[in-house]
Amino acid sequence: MAEHLSQSELDYPFKLLEYFNGFRVSKMIFSACELGVFDLLLKSQDALSAQHVAQELGTSMDGMERLLDALVGIEILEVETAQGTALYSSTDVANLYLAKGSAKSLHDMIIYRSQTVYPLWNNLVDAIRSGRNQYEKTFGLPSGHFFQAIYRSEEEMLKFMGIMSCHWVLDGHDVVTAFDLSRFQKVVDLGGCTGALANEMARAYPASSVTVFDLPQVVEAAQKHFKQEDSGVTFQSGDFFSDEIPGADLYVLARVIHDWPEEKCLALLKKIYETCKPGEFPLYLLESESADEGFKISMVG
Amino acid sequence: MAEHLSQSELDYPFKLLEYFNGFRVSKMIFSACELGVFDLLLKSQDALSAQHVAQELGTSMDGMERLLDALVGIEILEVETAQGTALYSSTDVANLYLAKGSAKSLHDMIIYRSQTVYPLWNNLVDAIRSGRNQYEKTFGLPSGHFFQAIYRSEEEMLKFMGIMSCHWVLDGHDVVTAFDLSRFQKVVDLGGCTGALANEMARAYPASSVTVFDLPQVVEAAQKHFKQEDSGVTFQSGDFFSDEIPGADLYVLARVIHDWPEEKCLALLKKIYETCKPGEFPLYLLESESADEGFKISMVG
Repeated sequence: MAEHLSQSELDYPFKLLEYFNGFRVSKMIFSACELGVFDLLLKSQDALSAQHVAQELGTSMDGMERLLDALVGIEILEVETAQGTALYSSTDVANLYLAKGSAKSLHDMIIYRSQTVYPLWNNLVDAIRSGRNQYEKTFGLPSGHFFQAIYRSEEEMLKFMGIMSCHWVLDGHDVVTAFDLSRFQKVVDLGGCTGALANEMARAYPASSVTVFDLPQVVEAAQKHFKQEDSGVTFQSGDFFSDEIPGADLYVLARVIHDWPEEKCLALLKKIYETCKPGEFPLYLLESESADEGFKISMVG
Repeated sequence: MAEHLSQSELDYPFKLLEYFNGFRVSKMIFSACELGVFDLLLKSQDALSAQHVAQELGTSMDGMERLLDALVGIEILEVETAQGTALYSSTDVANLYLAKGSAKSLHDMIIYRSQTVYPLWNNLVDAIRSGRNQYEKTFGLPSGHFFQAIYRSEEEMLKFMGIMSCHWVLDGHDVVTAFDLSRFQKVVDLGGCTGALANEMARAYPASSVTVFDLPQVVEAAQKHFKQEDSGVTFQSGDFFSDEIPGADLYVLARVIHDWPEEKCLALLKKIYETCKPGEFPLYLLESESADEGFKISMVG
């Protein structure tokens, strides 16, 4: 694999320079989302001039024109010229994923990355030096476990829940159908957050009962802001480290293990093992683990 | 072009998610550079374990292991396993462009992007709203023209000069040979900074005299820190807006026009036009303009 990159790069480092500019491409898209560019273009019947977009969204003309041209450059917008004026319109991709309203909108994921993850990664050198999260240096927040920071206010918690939900809108169906799970009658999604993955599970296996187990404030917010009627998913409040977990014959730990130090993970896995009744049910763990892209789905007997 | 992206993305937004993660890829490479990972691996004869690298560079083991694995993932490092231990080694690409010593090292460019450009771009939304640079919000610096901020200290000026030099190490030869410029006997590079492009010019056209014209503090630093013996390039101090510019039959304005508002650019171009003697010499401008990638090279008669 490495030779593949090397051979083409030694004469001129096209790919490497693309990597160096990766942060600019991210922030261009994030900023257009935050400013409402994709929503405005979706709403508009006609292609719009940079001046029109700038006026509608209350931005500078110069800045907006540069942003729109840059988005054309990465094929997220389209441009045509009419009587000497450049007119911008959206693409199907932008309408589907970047505008707010669509069923596959990644808007919440983008806002979170732009306002929380991007500034945190500015301190990556310190994170690698210390082996610690950078909430304190970046936002002046307590640097204990990062859920303290993420759940510091209802607004922040809802942002985080929004991004979790986005992930499962994209990947949930593929994850729950990667194995045939129909023989599991009682499924518990530990740390199941908004229930987005549980909903996919209930949809794919209508004969199974699916329960989300999460912290009380998360369950409350999930039912208030992310409720899907008739999904058949039930919610139960508790802390999977300190409380008893509900019995089940399939436990889901999705995007959970990667958040915690090894000793906490081992304690949790041990608790699940002991809650399952050996001999009566086989013990299965479905773990979909991710550092935001890509999944490892594994079942351990 | 836009259809090309759309068609593949509507089923699953692979490219779009890559764009969303662009900032992470940038910061991974930047951070490895800042921590000295590529220098250590170049110096070492053997492949090194994450523990060894972490110890040598004074970082956490967990953070370093994650960083090294991520760099393997984008083919910038290589890994092999010996007796259950992952051993990391560099690639030709990393040795050539990412380590400090090499003739094509982009180290200075990377440090500047990581420590200056990346945090500035965190405020892109505000930049587009206001149409102004974000030095004040980002670094608490005066928000007038950005050269005030860039040249705020000798250390900062040298960082900026380093990145300019990096660009011409990669692109300078291609730019100066895109047209045959051998008939121009006297060439002046206005705002020529370290003389990196002028050196390429003098090398390609040994019969021409090449002069760099830049601010006194820049010329002083260029001669102190970036001097190339026997390049034949001469330096002259001055401000191309307020001072007389030296006579020439070819003026180079490289990465200059994009830095200034239109009225300043027009005044500068008018001054160049008047300094050239019409009828005696043809007026040519070589302008290589770039927003960091790609060049437009144009000559106007």
